[in-house]
Amino acid sequence: MNRVPDSELILVPGGTLITATPEEGRALAITMARHTIHKIQPDLDVLKGGRPNYGANPDGLIAASQVVAIEFQTIAAANKYWQK
Amino acid sequence: MNRVPDSELILVPGGTLITATPEEGRALAITMARHTIHKIQPDLDVLKGGRPNYGANPDGLIAASQVVAIEFQTIAAANKYWQK
Amino acid sequence: MNRVPDSELILVPGGTLITATPEEGRALAITMARHTIHKIQPDLDVLKGGRPNYGANPDGLIAASQVVAIEFQTIAAANKYWQK
Amino acid sequence: MNRVPDSELILVPGGTLITATPEEGRALAITMARHTIHKIQPDLDVLKGGRPNYGANPDGLIAASQVVAIEFQTIAAANKYWQK
Amino acid sequence: MNRVPDSELILVPGGTLITATPEEGRALAITMARHTIHKIQPDLDVLKGGRPNYGANPDGLIAASQVVAIEFQTIAAANKYWQK
Amino acid sequence: MNRVPDSELILVPGGTLITATPEEGRALAITMARHTIHKIQPDLDVLKGGRPNYGANPDGLIAASQVVAIEFQTIAAANKYWQK
Repeated sequence: MNRVPDSELILVPGGTLITATPEEGRALAITMARHTIHKIQPDLDVLKGGRPNYGANPDGLIAASQVVAIEFQTIAAANKYWQK
Repeated sequence: MNRVPDSELILVPGGTLITATPEEGRALAITMARHTIHKIQPDLDVLKGGRPNYGANPDGLIAASQVVAIEFQTIAAANKYWQK
Repeated sequence: MNRVPDSELILVPGGTLITATPEEGRALAITMARHTIHKIQPDLDVLKGGRPNYGANPDGLIAASQVVAIEFQTIAAANKYWQK
Repeated sequence: MNRVPDSELILVPGGTLITATPEEGRALAITMARHTIHKIQPDLDVLKGGRPNYGANPDGLIAASQVVAIEFQTIAAANKYWQK
Repeated sequence: MNRVPDSELILVPGGTLITATPEEGRALAITMARHTIHKIQPDLDVLKGGRPNYGANPDGLIAASQVVAIEFQTIAAANKYWQK
Repeated sequence: MNRVPDSELILVPGGTLITATPEEGRALAITMARHTIHKIQPDLDVLKGGRPNYGANPDGLIAASQVVAIEFQTIAAANKYWQK
């Protein structure tokens, strides 16, 4: 098996939900979603085999963006919405 | 690749979840959802290739509106629901 | 293009999430969901072309009702659940 | 059109999210989900035409139960989880 | 009709969301999800007819587990996450 | 039936939602989602029969990652987002 590198399998990169800015929080949401998918399916060849049709498919893109939105809810709450 | 412009890849445009009005908060929810999709699929030609059938398809429209609803939950909470 | 009227493109009609009653809050949830769909697809002919099969299709109706449920969560929280 | 009766179109029957018990709150969640569907599609013949295949279809039943779960989140929060 | 027994139609078995442990809370989430499905479709033969293909189908299993996750959010909040 | 081992049927392994780190909280989210699926379908042969096509299918992977995101919302709230 052509395995996803270990760094891609860390579930919460950086080990914290706290970020300096909303932009970084959003980037963390995307990374967490992606790493969870890697944890479930760590075979790179299988992942890349499925990628073209999901990335070109509006349904797949909308579904992926929904997962990011849900992850971001958690991260935003953890950061108290970066209110000052 | 015909790449989405950089401005379309900013995940939280304006760098904050705080908006003056619910209307602006809702517009931010739509923009954040769209920019996340651009981040996942930055190839404009692929995005435009999928667009016609999702925008004309009730299932795709309902799915997209659900993502906006979830993003708006976060933004509305960040703004304490614009209560005065 | 036969465009949706401007009034149908206001994302938060009335400019506030606060309503006098749960019934009005629920109606706002439905309107907000519908207007977001109009914003994404403002071509009335395309919208009406897709309508018959979604409104007659249980899956489409359930998906639409889920979006309303999510919008209503936000509106109900904004109104502190209309508790007295 | 064979229209759904008016009582089936009230979005929040009883006009409040507050109920005496969790059981009643759950029943309200089911009713609210159903009435929203009636509001979107008030033609009884169309609704009944779609019913058999959704009620017999596990995917449709799971999707419907998810909407009830989301409605119930709101109602349970409104009732402070009926804690004493 | 071969009807689901009455005990399977109680929406919130035990009449409360409060449980002694997370394990019991999780079991309640599963039961509540199942009983809602029974309420929508109380015909045992229809339910059993759909069961084999949903239980053997990863999509159906993932969809069912999502409903449980949503129910559990409510129950966990009701129990203040069983924090001591 | 080739039954899933009992340890795989514990709904909340460890009996608590509290974890030392976000990484452990995320791992618990994945485990809880998986064990719920085992509870619904405890036949290992059926589970393994469905596995290949879901793990290789982007839609299935995205759907599974969404369930993890929802479970994680609950666990993160239980841990007050591991804020110090």
